[in-house]
Amino acid sequence: MSVVVVGSLAFDTVTTPKGKATDVLGGSATYFSVAASYFAPVRLVGVVGEDFPEAHRRVLADRRVDLEGLETKPGRTFRWEGAYSADMNSRETVSVELNAFGQFEPTIPSGYRDTPYVFLANASPRTQAKVLGQMARPRFVVADTMDLWIETQREDLTALLRKVDLLVVNDHELRQFTREGNLFRGAREVLGLGPRAVAVKKGEHGSLLVSRDGVSMLPAYPVESLVDPTGAGDAFAGGLLGYLAERGQTQYSDLRRGLAYGTVVASFAVQGFSLDGFKGVDRALIEERLDRFAAMIAF
Amino acid sequence: MSVVVVGSLAFDTVTTPKGKATDVLGGSATYFSVAASYFAPVRLVGVVGEDFPEAHRRVLADRRVDLEGLETKPGRTFRWEGAYSADMNSRETVSVELNAFGQFEPTIPSGYRDTPYVFLANASPRTQAKVLGQMARPRFVVADTMDLWIETQREDLTALLRKVDLLVVNDHELRQFTREGNLFRGAREVLGLGPRAVAVKKGEHGSLLVSRDGVSMLPAYPVESLVDPTGAGDAFAGGLLGYLAERGQTQYSDLRRGLAYGTVVASFAVQGFSLDGFKGVDRALIEERLDRFAAMIAF
Repeated sequence: MSVVVVGSLAFDTVTTPKGKATDVLGGSATYFSVAASYFAPVRLVGVVGEDFPEAHRRVLADRRVDLEGLETKPGRTFRWEGAYSADMNSRETVSVELNAFGQFEPTIPSGYRDTPYVFLANASPRTQAKVLGQMARPRFVVADTMDLWIETQREDLTALLRKVDLLVVNDHELRQFTREGNLFRGAREVLGLGPRAVAVKKGEHGSLLVSRDGVSMLPAYPVESLVDPTGAGDAFAGGLLGYLAERGQTQYSDLRRGLAYGTVVASFAVQGFSLDGFKGVDRALIEERLDRFAAMIAF
Repeated sequence: MSVVVVGSLAFDTVTTPKGKATDVLGGSATYFSVAASYFAPVRLVGVVGEDFPEAHRRVLADRRVDLEGLETKPGRTFRWEGAYSADMNSRETVSVELNAFGQFEPTIPSGYRDTPYVFLANASPRTQAKVLGQMARPRFVVADTMDLWIETQREDLTALLRKVDLLVVNDHELRQFTREGNLFRGAREVLGLGPRAVAVKKGEHGSLLVSRDGVSMLPAYPVESLVDPTGAGDAFAGGLLGYLAERGQTQYSDLRRGLAYGTVVASFAVQGFSLDGFKGVDRALIEERLDRFAAMIAF
């Protein structure tokens, strides 16, 4: 089954201890789409400026990502510049140019409206709610958010959660939103607001899944050649939701396995700048790494 | 088979967000012994002052810990006072009184010298080496260390590692010792110095095991009622080495399973101040939690 993603496409300038990449293809929708494309057909809704090159479209089209929902507006594409700390566990935003993404009012193409699986990448909860309002009857909705919206649009975010099946957040965001230091207790508070499950991303420390049916934890896949963590969270969500869409099932056991796929797909994403980490990656390589991962945590 | 532990016994005063405990039984040898006692006979080598009460001895003797190696010296017992941060991921030492532990020159009772499994709890590497020199022909030696020795006795520590099978350290210590940010690469550097394996403790983020035979990772067991992290690392080592001693095998697969037992035993330790977290814990409860843990990380 298909997945629709609504999010950003960007030119990223990223500095990590491994080097610097300038004006490379990035954005939440980009990372999510490529990650999910290994599992299911992806339909992308986003906006770019006139400077967005054909070559970038081709990268996505080559992964069979449907670009009917990709709008082109006058002016420049969204630009983001960030720099990572020495251990790559934290980053600083150096500059942001919203450009075409600034007044983005996503319009879901009519052919996308009955898509069963939906990923609302990080955006204002109001925008996320408007997107959801255009969908016919989604079967499973995953949402991401960020500190800014927790701070400035807490009520809208809370309202949105009533319509979300799985919230994907990082540990800091969950602590900020719930004001609860213990992640398991915090996640359980979120379950009280609507979602069936919460996936908590902890970067190099792995992830948690908390649902009414139970609790799971996974370490991160050990990446020795970590180059750039940008996009890891969106790739994680892409692997997770892509797997659910492929399987066409969203039981707790499916979510758990989706968490493992998300972990493995994210481990490829961080091995290079932009989408370089995915070079040469096919489904067989993902399965191989998944098997190795399973063996590493077995006892 | 038996395990000998050489380490500290202390009166701890600990402040955590959950409360304060004053002058309670603590120390690395204490936590290790109780943890390992669920799996194998434990022989304790340590020193206390004249103020160490019979009741504390009884706590250990009740877990069938052999106290022939527990020396009593004039004066007071080692005292440590610490305070934890709000998220309990870091702590500050408020005060230390070495007292009887100050000039501790451990003497291994002759009946202990052929013990096959040895845990060298945190102490100066010179002291650890002297202990090891008194052992006949240990089958498997585990050593812990701390930032102070890495800073002040790096060469002695490096020399000690040639005689150590498994180094158990936390993530900060490994980074400090190897000056390598990536834990997997850092652990592999340590393998080059002698040990067959390195276990890296990451607190609430779980643990890693790196050996020549492979790499394993485990998340921490989710403890929602975290009261006091003191002793978690020693309890982890106790569960791990206790299991190896019980099994009488030290293959990579045994180390991996030992890592899981260490994880589970540590999760009990942190549920109370001092040894309170072990109240009512028996082997059946450990097995039950181990099974639950295995289910939580399966996918």
